[in-house]
Amino acid sequence: MINDKLLNPKSVVVVGGYDDVAKPGGKVLKNLLDSNFEGDLYVVNPKLDEVQGIKSYRSVEELPQVDCAILAIAAKFCLQTVEVLTGNKETGGIIILSAGFSEENEEGAELERKIVEVIDNAGASLIGPNCVGLLNQTYAGIFTTPIPSLDSQGVDFISGSGATAVFIMESAVPKGLRFSSVYSVGNSAQIGVEQILKYLDETYVHGESAPVKLLYIENIDHPQMLYKHASSLIRKGAKIAAIKSGGCEAGSRAASSHTGALASPDVAVEALFRKAGIVRCNGRDELATVASIFMHPVPKGKNVAIITHAGGPAVMLTDSLSNGGLEIPHIEGPKAEALLEKLFPGSSVANPIDFLATGTAEQLGHIIDACENDFDEIDAMAVIFGSPGLFPVYDVYDLLDEKMKSCKKPIYPILPSVINVKDEIEHFIKKGRINFPDEVTFGDALSKVVATEAPQKEEIILPKIDTLAVREVIDSAENGYLNPDSVFKLLDAAGIDRAFERVVENVDDALAFANEFGYPLVMKVVGPVHKSDVGGVVLNVTNEETVRKEFDRLMQIKDTYAVLMGEMLSGT
Amino acid sequence: MINDKLLNPKSVVVVGGYDDVAKPGGKVLKNLLDSNFEGDLYVVNPKLDEVQGIKSYRSVEELPQVDCAILAIAAKFCLQTVEVLTGNKETGGIIILSAGFSEENEEGAELERKIVEVIDNAGASLIGPNCVGLLNQTYAGIFTTPIPSLDSQGVDFISGSGATAVFIMESAVPKGLRFSSVYSVGNSAQIGVEQILKYLDETYVHGESAPVKLLYIENIDHPQMLYKHASSLIRKGAKIAAIKSGGCEAGSRAASSHTGALASPDVAVEALFRKAGIVRCNGRDELATVASIFMHPVPKGKNVAIITHAGGPAVMLTDSLSNGGLEIPHIEGPKAEALLEKLFPGSSVANPIDFLATGTAEQLGHIIDACENDFDEIDAMAVIFGSPGLFPVYDVYDLLDEKMKSCKKPIYPILPSVINVKDEIEHFIKKGRINFPDEVTFGDALSKVVATEAPQKEEIILPKIDTLAVREVIDSAENGYLNPDSVFKLLDAAGIDRAFERVVENVDDALAFANEFGYPLVMKVVGPVHKSDVGGVVLNVTNEETVRKEFDRLMQIKDTYAVLMGEMLSGT
Repeated sequence: MINDKLLNPKSVVVVGGYDDVAKPGGKVLKNLLDSNFEGDLYVVNPKLDEVQGIKSYRSVEELPQVDCAILAIAAKFCLQTVEVLTGNKETGGIIILSAGFSEENEEGAELERKIVEVIDNAGASLIGPNCVGLLNQTYAGIFTTPIPSLDSQGVDFISGSGATAVFIMESAVPKGLRFSSVYSVGNSAQIGVEQILKYLDETYVHGESAPVKLLYIENIDHPQMLYKHASSLIRKGAKIAAIKSGGCEAGSRAASSHTGALASPDVAVEALFRKAGIVRCNGRDELATVASIFMHPVPKGKNVAIITHAGGPAVMLTDSLSNGGLEIPHIEGPKAEALLEKLFPGSSVANPIDFLATGTAEQLGHIIDACENDFDEIDAMAVIFGSPGLFPVYDVYDLLDEKMKSCKKPIYPILPSVINVKDEIEHFIKKGRINFPDEVTFGDALSKVVATEAPQKEEIILPKIDTLAVREVIDSAENGYLNPDSVFKLLDAAGIDRAFERVVENVDDALAFANEFGYPLVMKVVGPVHKSDVGGVVLNVTNEETVRKEFDRLMQIKDTYAVLMGEMLSGT
Repeated sequence: MINDKLLNPKSVVVVGGYDDVAKPGGKVLKNLLDSNFEGDLYVVNPKLDEVQGIKSYRSVEELPQVDCAILAIAAKFCLQTVEVLTGNKETGGIIILSAGFSEENEEGAELERKIVEVIDNAGASLIGPNCVGLLNQTYAGIFTTPIPSLDSQGVDFISGSGATAVFIMESAVPKGLRFSSVYSVGNSAQIGVEQILKYLDETYVHGESAPVKLLYIENIDHPQMLYKHASSLIRKGAKIAAIKSGGCEAGSRAASSHTGALASPDVAVEALFRKAGIVRCNGRDELATVASIFMHPVPKGKNVAIITHAGGPAVMLTDSLSNGGLEIPHIEGPKAEALLEKLFPGSSVANPIDFLATGTAEQLGHIIDACENDFDEIDAMAVIFGSPGLFPVYDVYDLLDEKMKSCKKPIYPILPSVINVKDEIEHFIKKGRINFPDEVTFGDALSKVVATEAPQKEEIILPKIDTLAVREVIDSAENGYLNPDSVFKLLDAAGIDRAFERVVENVDDALAFANEFGYPLVMKVVGPVHKSDVGGVVLNVTNEETVRKEFDRLMQIKDTYAVLMGEMLSGT
């Protein structure tokens, strides 16, 4: 499905290229030119010989061989164009930006099916239709802006919605997030989110491939494919965050209207993500924040040092991280005192480490060094440094950048002064760094990342099931009810763990069970069907006296012929 | 405490004014000049006759009468300066920016106490020390930036932390939020958050005063004062949102280190805010978003129309609002069909109302008109409109601004394209409008606002307590246990509502109770102490047959002499 001509074309044609950059066919050509595509670039426009300085052919038939075609023409012309391209021009990658296919009506759906058939038969790849395109380090086959900074160690981003892809980039770019590739799958006629994830999994080389994958999805057509490749990628060392929207009833109706998605039950999505190790996000800002966290080293544990020159944000961040299950451990001892000596009077190193509004870059360096080398309990540092607008803070942000290069523990930069030191933050981001402008948004996202467990093991080991024994128990059931002993046999035969239990008929056996397994215990009558209604269940039995007393009482309940003793488990 | 010389001075002196705007004394003077303070402005600087073009006196003694003084000098010089100002210069408002007081050590605390004594005796007002100052529509007595747009119908903001005040403004200003005043209370030596809130309450005139109050607090010294004036303000029509940080154990340690705050138990804070009707926020971005919602009309109900030209954000917003307890009602009927006629094919009016990527300003106008006039079930509109970067969208945002002027239902503008249509968003904000850049951040905040209940009634009407009857019941208790009838008498005498209950001794009375109060019912044995242990409690009795059966069974339990029939309440 996904081939090299789509991803790394040596030549690209824009079919329907215009001079007018307010049209998709004009803007995609401009983006290709602006991003300095190194291969051959052509245009097809029936009325022009040159578009934006690029040679234009009057028809597709006149084109030379071309690896990849981007179609920005009316839907009705697409099928015949694709036939010529795949049949005569050896085109292997097709991106159809145009709308008017399955998202519109049955006629469009039929046209879409025919196009896919032609492309499948030619062994070619199709992105779209009804999408904003594809952007990677080879070419900007996308008709929208912004074009983010490209970086092979950035983010691979796959979106089931074109406009949402744009808006997610608008949230991510100001934070400093860089992208390796952006796929807008549109109607997913041939290639959807899952197929791209599969490709990214199968080609993944840890340390070389882009380490972070982001997904925006409204429907999961192939949950097993998604699970398989997401968990595989994460096992290999990649990190994945995703928005799966349309979870609630009204949201599901909204998604259905938008991308024609059928409702995926939200509990199933939740389970799939949890088993795969995907961090689930609810909004664009959260997704971009989680991705920003992913771009830092992974903390070895849950202990965070909060380093700040301003108290308030540190207090709010402490609340956020603590409530999210992280620790802000108290720092003390001779090394802490040695650090305090290097700071201005009134500073605190107890954690948060507050080096005051007057704190310097040099002092920040001492603090980071101490957290990196001296305070073994610290797993990560969050550095908060803004400005009241009195003087520049380039020295502090340069120091931060240097320390981030040399430290093994992650350092998360929280730079709240997006107005006062706008230039310094831009300077910091230009070095490839990321800013977390809001400490609580950061803290909540970090908590979510840390709380997301590793994917389930690849091989799921199911218990051995003794089918013969299961059959025997079932066949021996007389009236549809099983007595406790038969239930135990059945569970054991099916390999299902169970609480220790024993049916006893006298108080000595009851006490023997209690001595063997310890307290607290559960006692239930054997005989009556609705045990609770007749007072036949005793929870939290904690001593011998109660065992004796309750045994006698239970045996007096009508129909009771024995007592079931059991371990006290939650939910018993 | 708070007087007119502090809030509306006719003359202001900066004691410690400099030419160097990297120093607080230089920057506050620059801010006063930049904000065109209309009164007389003086400087005291022992070495200069002119500072930033303003006449400078060599000593405080040489000053003429001056209403308000801003002190940016070392702590040790402050007491004697304040003595001269209040004693000889009729100064009524004092703002001490300087640090080095109670936040530093006991010596500083002593100095602070002496200064407060002098100021109290003079009947003057003190803001600080250790603060960034005071900003209102009369003057910018603050040494930090940004200086937000000022608007008498904007936000009154009181902060217990100076740097946090700056960072909150940096979060709020880009959204378009305007301010009426900003108070940084620093050490709150004389005037703290509660006192300012009291002043704002006592002077509040709905329709004239700033309608929104924001608070950042780490400790609540006077909870009853806070409760009284917050709830009073809200009853008068104002809206209040607040961050109270330092709630968790580690956060409390952090806050204590920062502002010396003692831990306020977080449950108490939660209860205080809930009773007062304050919207509690956890971070700066959330606080600014809630304040932005406050600047719009109040929706009459929970039904939101989501109007969008892009599906994805509408789906995410639907999820957020639905999960937050709001409704996105399905829209249908002849008026919906009439609206659909006016939109491009493929649009949907079912809610979300999706008028497609190609949707125009004119179409948006039709949609808003229909939601305002035709769809009675709609209480509020959220309009999502960004841009893929092809052409400008001034026409859409101008239309939005016009409709916001004429519509009675609130319209919340969600403009996600902070890069692609940056200029258009700035143009929109310059008209006094606010942007919500992230739909989920908006949706979560709106849910929180709508979920916050009105303040408790001013007069708490306690039940009349019949103390004689209470005493009688207690005196008649023989062994420390009360029989059910005595318990009922006690509760009734204390004016405490209770479930209907009756003790019955025969099955006919049991059935009579059931007929009188209806099902489901609870039945309990009267006599045994540990009723559950002996099977003496039956929940969820739903029919006559069960009443009969269980009555017989319960009466057979040892020590039982009667049965208590009761209404089934949760937690029974």
